[in-house]
Amino acid sequence: MSGSIYGKLFKISTWGESHGKGVGVVIDGVPSGLELCEEDIQVFLDRRKPGQSKYTTKRNEADSVNILSGVFEGKTTGTPISLIVYNEDQHSKDYSNISDIYRPGHADYCFDTKYGFRDYRGGGRSSGRETIARVAAGAVASKILARLGIQVNAYASEIAGIKATRVDLSLRDTNPFGLPDSDAAQKAATKADEAIKSLNSLGGIVECIVDGCPVGIGETVFDKLDARMAQAVMSIGAVKGFEIGDGFAVSESDGVSNNDEFYMNNGKVDKRTNHSGGILGGMSDGSRIIMRAAFKPTPSIASVQKTVNKSGEEVEISIHGRHDPLIVPRAIVVVESMVCITILDLLLENMTARLDKIIDFYS
Amino acid sequence: MSGSIYGKLFKISTWGESHGKGVGVVIDGVPSGLELCEEDIQVFLDRRKPGQSKYTTKRNEADSVNILSGVFEGKTTGTPISLIVYNEDQHSKDYSNISDIYRPGHADYCFDTKYGFRDYRGGGRSSGRETIARVAAGAVASKILARLGIQVNAYASEIAGIKATRVDLSLRDTNPFGLPDSDAAQKAATKADEAIKSLNSLGGIVECIVDGCPVGIGETVFDKLDARMAQAVMSIGAVKGFEIGDGFAVSESDGVSNNDEFYMNNGKVDKRTNHSGGILGGMSDGSRIIMRAAFKPTPSIASVQKTVNKSGEEVEISIHGRHDPLIVPRAIVVVESMVCITILDLLLENMTARLDKIIDFYS
Amino acid sequence: MSGSIYGKLFKISTWGESHGKGVGVVIDGVPSGLELCEEDIQVFLDRRKPGQSKYTTKRNEADSVNILSGVFEGKTTGTPISLIVYNEDQHSKDYSNISDIYRPGHADYCFDTKYGFRDYRGGGRSSGRETIARVAAGAVASKILARLGIQVNAYASEIAGIKATRVDLSLRDTNPFGLPDSDAAQKAATKADEAIKSLNSLGGIVECIVDGCPVGIGETVFDKLDARMAQAVMSIGAVKGFEIGDGFAVSESDGVSNNDEFYMNNGKVDKRTNHSGGILGGMSDGSRIIMRAAFKPTPSIASVQKTVNKSGEEVEISIHGRHDPLIVPRAIVVVESMVCITILDLLLENMTARLDKIIDFYS
Amino acid sequence: MSGSIYGKLFKISTWGESHGKGVGVVIDGVPSGLELCEEDIQVFLDRRKPGQSKYTTKRNEADSVNILSGVFEGKTTGTPISLIVYNEDQHSKDYSNISDIYRPGHADYCFDTKYGFRDYRGGGRSSGRETIARVAAGAVASKILARLGIQVNAYASEIAGIKATRVDLSLRDTNPFGLPDSDAAQKAATKADEAIKSLNSLGGIVECIVDGCPVGIGETVFDKLDARMAQAVMSIGAVKGFEIGDGFAVSESDGVSNNDEFYMNNGKVDKRTNHSGGILGGMSDGSRIIMRAAFKPTPSIASVQKTVNKSGEEVEISIHGRHDPLIVPRAIVVVESMVCITILDLLLENMTARLDKIIDFYS
Repeated sequence: MSGSIYGKLFKISTWGESHGKGVGVVIDGVPSGLELCEEDIQVFLDRRKPGQSKYTTKRNEADSVNILSGVFEGKTTGTPISLIVYNEDQHSKDYSNISDIYRPGHADYCFDTKYGFRDYRGGGRSSGRETIARVAAGAVASKILARLGIQVNAYASEIAGIKATRVDLSLRDTNPFGLPDSDAAQKAATKADEAIKSLNSLGGIVECIVDGCPVGIGETVFDKLDARMAQAVMSIGAVKGFEIGDGFAVSESDGVSNNDEFYMNNGKVDKRTNHSGGILGGMSDGSRIIMRAAFKPTPSIASVQKTVNKSGEEVEISIHGRHDPLIVPRAIVVVESMVCITILDLLLENMTARLDKIIDFYS
Repeated sequence: MSGSIYGKLFKISTWGESHGKGVGVVIDGVPSGLELCEEDIQVFLDRRKPGQSKYTTKRNEADSVNILSGVFEGKTTGTPISLIVYNEDQHSKDYSNISDIYRPGHADYCFDTKYGFRDYRGGGRSSGRETIARVAAGAVASKILARLGIQVNAYASEIAGIKATRVDLSLRDTNPFGLPDSDAAQKAATKADEAIKSLNSLGGIVECIVDGCPVGIGETVFDKLDARMAQAVMSIGAVKGFEIGDGFAVSESDGVSNNDEFYMNNGKVDKRTNHSGGILGGMSDGSRIIMRAAFKPTPSIASVQKTVNKSGEEVEISIHGRHDPLIVPRAIVVVESMVCITILDLLLENMTARLDKIIDFYS
Repeated sequence: MSGSIYGKLFKISTWGESHGKGVGVVIDGVPSGLELCEEDIQVFLDRRKPGQSKYTTKRNEADSVNILSGVFEGKTTGTPISLIVYNEDQHSKDYSNISDIYRPGHADYCFDTKYGFRDYRGGGRSSGRETIARVAAGAVASKILARLGIQVNAYASEIAGIKATRVDLSLRDTNPFGLPDSDAAQKAATKADEAIKSLNSLGGIVECIVDGCPVGIGETVFDKLDARMAQAVMSIGAVKGFEIGDGFAVSESDGVSNNDEFYMNNGKVDKRTNHSGGILGGMSDGSRIIMRAAFKPTPSIASVQKTVNKSGEEVEISIHGRHDPLIVPRAIVVVESMVCITILDLLLENMTARLDKIIDFYS
Repeated sequence: MSGSIYGKLFKISTWGESHGKGVGVVIDGVPSGLELCEEDIQVFLDRRKPGQSKYTTKRNEADSVNILSGVFEGKTTGTPISLIVYNEDQHSKDYSNISDIYRPGHADYCFDTKYGFRDYRGGGRSSGRETIARVAAGAVASKILARLGIQVNAYASEIAGIKATRVDLSLRDTNPFGLPDSDAAQKAATKADEAIKSLNSLGGIVECIVDGCPVGIGETVFDKLDARMAQAVMSIGAVKGFEIGDGFAVSESDGVSNNDEFYMNNGKVDKRTNHSGGILGGMSDGSRIIMRAAFKPTPSIASVQKTVNKSGEEVEISIHGRHDPLIVPRAIVVVESMVCITILDLLLENMTARLDKIIDFYS
């Protein structure tokens, strides 16, 4: 599996299984001079920590991060930063009964076919715990972006069909769903309670906005900012769709309506509307960047399901581990992290775009 | 702009501007022994050729491809294949009047800010002609996939809100929209005629299906098959959304409904439904892979639009070049190409996944 | 510093400083099904362990490796393997007096200029301890190569001008220099004793041979097998030269003498001589691969040296930490490791070279 | 063959065979705003042009370069630059008699084994003509470096054992060997005349110096400046050894002699000696960078040689194409080019090393 490394200049290399010794990430390409301590990263990890409400897994782990390298006297040195979170509360026995069974909606069958066998405990590498490494790296990227005046914020824009009708970021952390809208949160609670009762699970949508991004970030052909964010976000388990700006709605729009008019706003180029979602031709256009990711309902459900096992027998299964009935609440910070990492990576690359600026840099 | 190279083992490096000498691609990593001639590639290019109906640009170019290297005595040698299509029918004067104006919905403003100036003729590098290189490379990838029993087919599933209600691939090329449904095509024609009359443009959706893909293609974390296809497809100009399987609809589904039950079908593992779109945990699961991409309406419209110019003055513009009122018909083969390239790249990488197979290979 | 990742399919991502919490490596791309335990890796690490003779540093660390991920029930799973060696016997105070001084022959001045400051303890990231990560990864690569019938062996071919006049690998580990020649080892001991007495240090040459490599490994242009090995080996601290086969001696040879005649040897193509060192046109040619790396004398010496400090003052320094008077003995396994990693990486890539073999693989 | 792309930010993708339609390169990552015309590149190509003296091949081609993309109104736009040189004076019949024979010292046997067959005309992809693409890209890199005050100069330091005893760059182009020493050139001419008469060929050494490189270029672990230059230069056909600074001589030196003392030179840190060759810990140290590459004698010789053919028969061959009796004279500019490309690539990457400079850049 040669696919656990992401990024070109800000490169993250993640590792770890759900029920192994831990999960972690090595970040190669962190610029020197950033003040960084474990608390900076812990704040991000706590946002995806399990056990925060009845709507998330009861797995109870502090998920404390350790910085193993790359920081000296409180500052990054420019060398790789190795971050580790040890696994603690593993109930591996929970999984022994399903070691030979292919859970519907999971990668078990693909893993066995591709690799010949698999670490079946808790999903192994395909566990949601894999995202700890993304979030730890995202915390570092986010701190750098903040120094550059760039803010990235994600939230749930929809839970099981219930849409947030307003976006008040201050409300996001006041409900267990990450909804920036208290009314929607109440309705979502009702739906989620029902789902739990009926041994079912729910999907939703995470929206992410970026403010303060300079114009021109993103490369013109394959490494368009939106293309790279699409890969980054779609690589999060359970994401089945990605869109930027008006997204799929553009298919029913027309050019006159969909084009965003440029105008001068206090001496600066601005757009009257933002159908483009802050990106034109793969480059940031100076407006707010806005994107959405669709998450499928948690595939691990306690309801009885039909499936097959490794020997090719048809069997029934009901999954009783400790699983989130909704993925979205804890996935919000994962989306935010992948967006931060991608923007930073392309922002670094953009420094090399113009000869006059390179000459300035070196003189 | 360090972003015109895509792929890891099957690597494409594209170049060329709308009104330069030509466009082309160098493909590094084509295995040796593939029978390949210019006609193989021309067939693909002809599917995106301009001037095929009143719904596409009147730019009239044969877009004939030349193979410059990598083929000897009718077969690929394993060395890089350089493909070139010379530009012919350029009307650069069409653009002189907009050289300083930022066209709404286009990358002009971003280009000027990022690079200090731009080749304003016909969109320069951001022109739709850039996709010629993608299609030429896609033709090669497609031919290799065919040898492995893998078929990739894209078509328009929706034009301006008019959905194909059936998918009969044999109908796709019988109408100017690439719709696999003749009724939908008739309705689309009406809508498109209106759009042309009102100097407007329309969006749509391209759907792509892959049959015959072995199980296990795709890498588990960042290089998931769907994540990489998301990057590949979102990197096509004008794409604003991407989804796999049920896509955004999963957000309103629930686990019981959305999980695909495994069962034994004539001794083989199969799925009763395919909400997942043929991918689980980022790996192909043996079912049909199905994905969709949303295209925005062509931003170049003849209607009068307000905008600004390079000097920061507010101006009006109406764009009179030769532009497609719909992007979708000619984009179908571009989507197909990017999907072929991505699947082949990950299929090659997958050969290294298991030690027992590596030992077999070398013994 | 975006330079701690090496490899394309077998990718290693290393981290760690001399006096931080530890050093480690994440290996992405290890095929599944390899039996692997900590002892397999420890054997390699023990070959570079400090404190093994009076000719190596007295730093006394077990350098015990921990496997944190990627192995399940004794076998690799195909997911990233994270390996860590905790630092133990750090005497950071040894370095406080040189925190502002630029040691001759070291990277201190470059580090400060590039990054603004540095972790001055024990060389930080530029310490020889960085090579622990290379060796841990090399042990894994070596085990895979062994399964494919490929043996890689390095040894000292020269210590301070004293050349091994024979190569008997069984003698390599019977002397503290890694010389495959006992007579040379005795002479080297005399020279090394003198160097220690006079607070000086010595250089030498490591030679590495590869047997059993299939024909055709290496890519024809930039990723030639010898070119990639050159990068891999030159990236080891203190290496100042690299050569393959006859190396620099070819400059004084002529075509008639230097060309290796092909002949049939028991029905197989073979070469009568091996001036090429087992590589032609960047690809392995089936003969023994042979290469050499020149190591400079350890720059850390206790003799008084003139230099400057961070404030631009001229000062004197004598370095009293625990340093090896010779780098070569402990570097042997580092060279072997980098060669293993490189050959494996290109051997995996080579699987994708021919269409007929790809079709075989997937059918 | 996935090995014809080199570089990380300044990426070159080369293609072309000796007797195909041409050779070329696509450069992705050229910053915008560089004044560039074909003459800038032609000057470099003319330095490797065949037919310049009796010591080089009589193949008579102008090797005129065409810029196909990436330049608008005389300046680079930031988009990929595609450069092509058409082949003209091909005598493919020269090779038909050796299509099945494995020439000693050539890659024929490796090619056939790796790919199943090969383009045998003129060495195909392994021809010296492949280096045209390197030189064309090198010309662009060199022009950018010049704008940054960095000069790269290569020359022959040794021809067939005859060493240049002085380096006067103004003499380099006054003799057919590229020697910066007229006495050595005279002796070399005598030796070369003999070699031609006896149907033999000769080797030599190219030395390359870099002046004006800022401190800190190069990344600390695998992407050390010297390691990357080693790959770049060793990837040139016929190079069998690479060294930096004192190179292999360090193996016989000692720490006291080999360490370069730092001192203050007019308020700047400087070194009294330069055994390190301008690189410490993989980073440029501000001194002149100096390196050497050993070239083997041309393997194509007219003398009768024994070898085998594709059917496993032992045969004799004498090679009568138009071959250089010495590779070095025309290889000088190739070495210079690969060094320029590598330094520029790492110089761009270095812009991202420090947070304070990134903040400056974006404010």
